[in-house]
Formats: sequence, structure tokens, C-alpha cells
Amino acid sequence: MEILDGKKLATELKEEIKTEVEQLVINGVKRPHLAAVLVGNDGASETYVASKVKSCEQVGFESSMLRFDENITEEELLQAVDKLNKDSKIDGFIVQLPLPKHINEDKVIEAIAPEKDVDGFHPVNVGRMVIGLPAFISATPAGIMEMLKRYKIDTQGKHCVVVGRSNIVGKPMSILMSQKSEFANATVTMCHSRTKNMAEITRTADILIVALGSAEFVKADMVKQGAVVIDVGITRVKSDKTKSGWKLKGDVDFEEVAEKCSYITPVPGGVGPLTIVSLLRNTLLAAEKKIYK
Amino acid sequence: MEILDGKKLATELKEEIKTEVEQLVINGVKRPHLAAVLVGNDGASETYVASKVKSCEQVGFESSMLRFDENITEEELLQAVDKLNKDSKIDGFIVQLPLPKHINEDKVIEAIAPEKDVDGFHPVNVGRMVIGLPAFISATPAGIMEMLKRYKIDTQGKHCVVVGRSNIVGKPMSILMSQKSEFANATVTMCHSRTKNMAEITRTADILIVALGSAEFVKADMVKQGAVVIDVGITRVKSDKTKSGWKLKGDVDFEEVAEKCSYITPVPGGVGPLTIVSLLRNTLLAAEKKIYK
Repeated sequence: MEILDGKKLATELKEEIKTEVEQLVINGVKRPHLAAVLVGNDGASETYVASKVKSCEQVGFESSMLRFDENITEEELLQAVDKLNKDSKIDGFIVQLPLPKHINEDKVIEAIAPEKDVDGFHPVNVGRMVIGLPAFISATPAGIMEMLKRYKIDTQGKHCVVVGRSNIVGKPMSILMSQKSEFANATVTMCHSRTKNMAEITRTADILIVALGSAEFVKADMVKQGAVVIDVGITRVKSDKTKSGWKLKGDVDFEEVAEKCSYITPVPGGVGPLTIVSLLRNTLLAAEKKIYK
Repeated sequence: MEILDGKKLATELKEEIKTEVEQLVINGVKRPHLAAVLVGNDGASETYVASKVKSCEQVGFESSMLRFDENITEEELLQAVDKLNKDSKIDGFIVQLPLPKHINEDKVIEAIAPEKDVDGFHPVNVGRMVIGLPAFISATPAGIMEMLKRYKIDTQGKHCVVVGRSNIVGKPMSILMSQKSEFANATVTMCHSRTKNMAEITRTADILIVALGSAEFVKADMVKQGAVVIDVGITRVKSDKTKSGWKLKGDVDFEEVAEKCSYITPVPGGVGPLTIVSLLRNTLLAAEKKIYK
């Protein structure tokens, strides 16, 4: 069993991005610039955005954070998005989700210019990904694809089971894994809350990708000997073994499952660290105009 | 075993559309208007477009056919698309594929205004479909979904196997069948040319949708007793039993497979007739501005 060390890989990938950025600067090109829009004071959102900004610094990007009161109107937020769309200094930007309930998230995402949508949430980017055209691919799926590639996981013709059908992980993951490309080209089964005989299906997986958001859902008897297991879940559960009284758990019962796997991602330190790197990579691609000319 | 009679269903659906159109006209709204762009003199394309125009007449739509010489430049074709985008008399239009090789099909499709893209090929419509937003869904998948609905096929939590990963059938089909909606909500496995143990997988299908373009690929031993089989393939093969010397074959060996099925589509007369109806339905939705306000 080998650990898919997302933390280590993320560090390497950040170094690669940093080197590319320095090369851009040497060539007289401006540093990539990521902007993040944060509405309200949600604790988790604050943490995520702060972490994204910090990562920008680490790789030599410029970054901006635009904060808005939680009472901002939808119209005002759409105006802010429009301003970012038109600001030639900004290469890409994200609007941190969730947004307050009085704002239509879909409408805000659709207002982002696709060529600056480095989160890859805009329908144009989702559609281009499905069709197989150049697109910004959302961060978690892009991170997982990069991990499979870097660890040279054999996926061609294998059976990949994706558990969870969210728009930002499950659905794009199932599409990407079935595409006719290297480190993909798998037979893909998409499972979700309505799936019957879940264990029966997951046991047939050569590659099992779990993005359900249910702590330790996957037990040893649901996994085939030698499987590659990718755990996207991250849930905070009570623990009497930590100082804080909390512990982060994945969707996979790591202790039980790990020994059966050929490869497995830990939680934390697996998929998570790669997510931010994908966002940085997308921003670099945006700055270099490699997706949209 | 019951035949999923696409021809009969298409006739009923056309009657429904016709009634809706007459109601629109009574209410003082103009008739929906579909335009079709045909480049060159490909025989199959001519037949398809002629059939689409004829169907428009049957349901009371206006229709236009724009013919261009096969030597039209990409720029000229893009200008024609732009003109259709801006023409308020046209509710929706299609550019019949394939286009001559000197023209970039993706570029032409992306030039179509999403709100007039009644073929549902534009990345915005593909992306919106994946996300679950209102979208024009491409004709064949939309036709199959309508068939499942009209025949009240139980799909919830069932195992649906889709064979073939084309952009216009396989991929959208796999996404639609896994969506959280009625007559969908299935566990979906997407198989393709690189799938190992194809028969082993298809034998687990409660609903088997085959869109491979390989005549009589699916044999009886690949199908579970009681399965619902949807055959999207249509290939012309030589025959000494017909006057023309040709016969249309599906991807499923109907004679062998039919008796094992609970439901099966014939070829011809199954999925095919519903495809044009879906295009009409999309055009009606476009005229009524029900997808894009």
C-alpha cells in the first residue's frame, strides 16, 4: 500500500508553478493575478479564501481580496463581477461559495467571464470540458486527475466508481475519467444516494473515488483488494483524542480500508492540498491565455 | 416483451406540439420558426434536413433552409450564423453536421447563440444540462428521456449502462440518467471502446442504452433477462432480402435479444423518430422563451 501524498505533491506542483511565474517575469510578462470575492463572514469561507491568497503569495502571484457585507444586493454583486471581468489587471477570479440566500448563485457564476472563471464553474467551462475542448476544470477534479498522472496510476480500461454526483466533484470526475485521454479512458460508474447495492458496486472498482460528504462511509468490505482509493470527503467529527475536541474524517474509513489498497489518499493531506494548486494552475493558464486565446 | 414504439410515440408527440402551436396562434403569438443551415451536397445530410423541414410543416412551424456551397469559407459561414442569431423572426436554428473539413465545427457551434441552439450542442447548453439548469438538450438523448417517461419505465436506483461516449449521445445520456429527477436517478455505467469485459457489464444493466454505431454488436448473452434495451445505432448493411439490397441495422441484434427484454426499441422506428420530435420541442421551447427568458 502506498499513500497518495497530496501535501508533498502540492508542494512540488507549487514549486513548478513558481518557477514558471519567475520565467514569465524574466520574459517581461506581468505576474498572474487572482482575485477572490468574499461575501459575508462565514468562518469556513474566510479560511478557504485566506488559504488561497496565501498560496498565491507562495507561487509569486498577485492577489486581491474583495470583501462585501452579507447584505450586498445581487445587483451590486453582479456589478462587482462585471468590473472584475473588465479589469485587465485581473487574470482570473473566484466568488467564494456559498453566497447568502438572497443571492442567486447560478446567476452570479454565469455572470463571470468564462475566460476568467478559474473555478471552472461556469456552464461554458463545464460544457467545454464535457465536449473535450480546452476548459478551466474545477479544482478538485483537476487535482485528482493531476494526482493520478503524477503517480502514474494505470486507469485505461479500468473500472472507476465515483460515489457522489455533485456539480463540482462527482459529475465532472465521472466525465473526466471516461474521456479518451491518458490517465483516464476508464469505464466509469456513477453512484449516488439512490444507488442500490452500493457495496456490491464499489467492490468492483479498480479506482474508487468517494465524494459523498459522509464520514467513514466506505468500509473495508466495500473495497476490492488492490484498489486505488481517492477520498474527497472531509467532515469534522467530535474526538476525545485531540486537543481541539475535533478531528477531520474522510468518506473512507482509512484505518480499515488502507491495508487493502494499492494506493490511498489520506484525509487530511490527500486531495485537499491539490485543490488549491489546481486553482493556481488555472490562474496561470488564464494569465498565459492557454485556454481561451 | 413490449416494443418501445418510437414511430407511434413520435406521431402522438407531434400532435401535441401541433395543438400547442395552434393555441399560440390563437393567442396572437407567431408560429415557431426553425432554420436549418446546410453546407454542400452530402446525401445523408440532405435527407436529414429535408425530413426536419417536413416535420416543421407537420406541426405548423415556419421553417427556412439556408443552402451554402461546400466551398463556403469559415468566415462566411460564421457571418451567416451571426445573421441568424440576430434575426428576430428565427426562434432556433441548426447547422447540419458534418461540415466540410476546412471549417472548424466547434467554432461554428460556439458561434450559435445558446438561446437559439435547438440542437443543444453549444457548450453553454451542455454545461447547463450537466449542472441541472434549464438547457436545450440534444435531440437523441432528449428523445430517449421522453420515451422512458411516456412508457413510465422505472429507472430510479436501477443500473443503467450506456455504451458509447459520443458528445451527442453517450455522454449526455449518462449525465441525464444519473440526474436527481423522475425517470432518471439511475446508477449509471459509461462503457466505450476501451472497456474490458463489456458483456459482463452489460449483463448487469436493468436499462441498456447502446450508441456505438456497430451493427448488431449486442447479442443475447450480453443482456439480462427483463432488461430495457434502447438501441441508438443505425447502420446500413447489405442484404439480399430487400429490394434495395440494403437493410438498416441497430447496435442490438434484435432477433436474438428482443425475447429477453421487458422493453426494446426496434431499428428503424425506435429512437430515430423521436430525435426530430425533440428538435421540434426545443424549437417550441425557444419560441416560448421557456429555457432562456
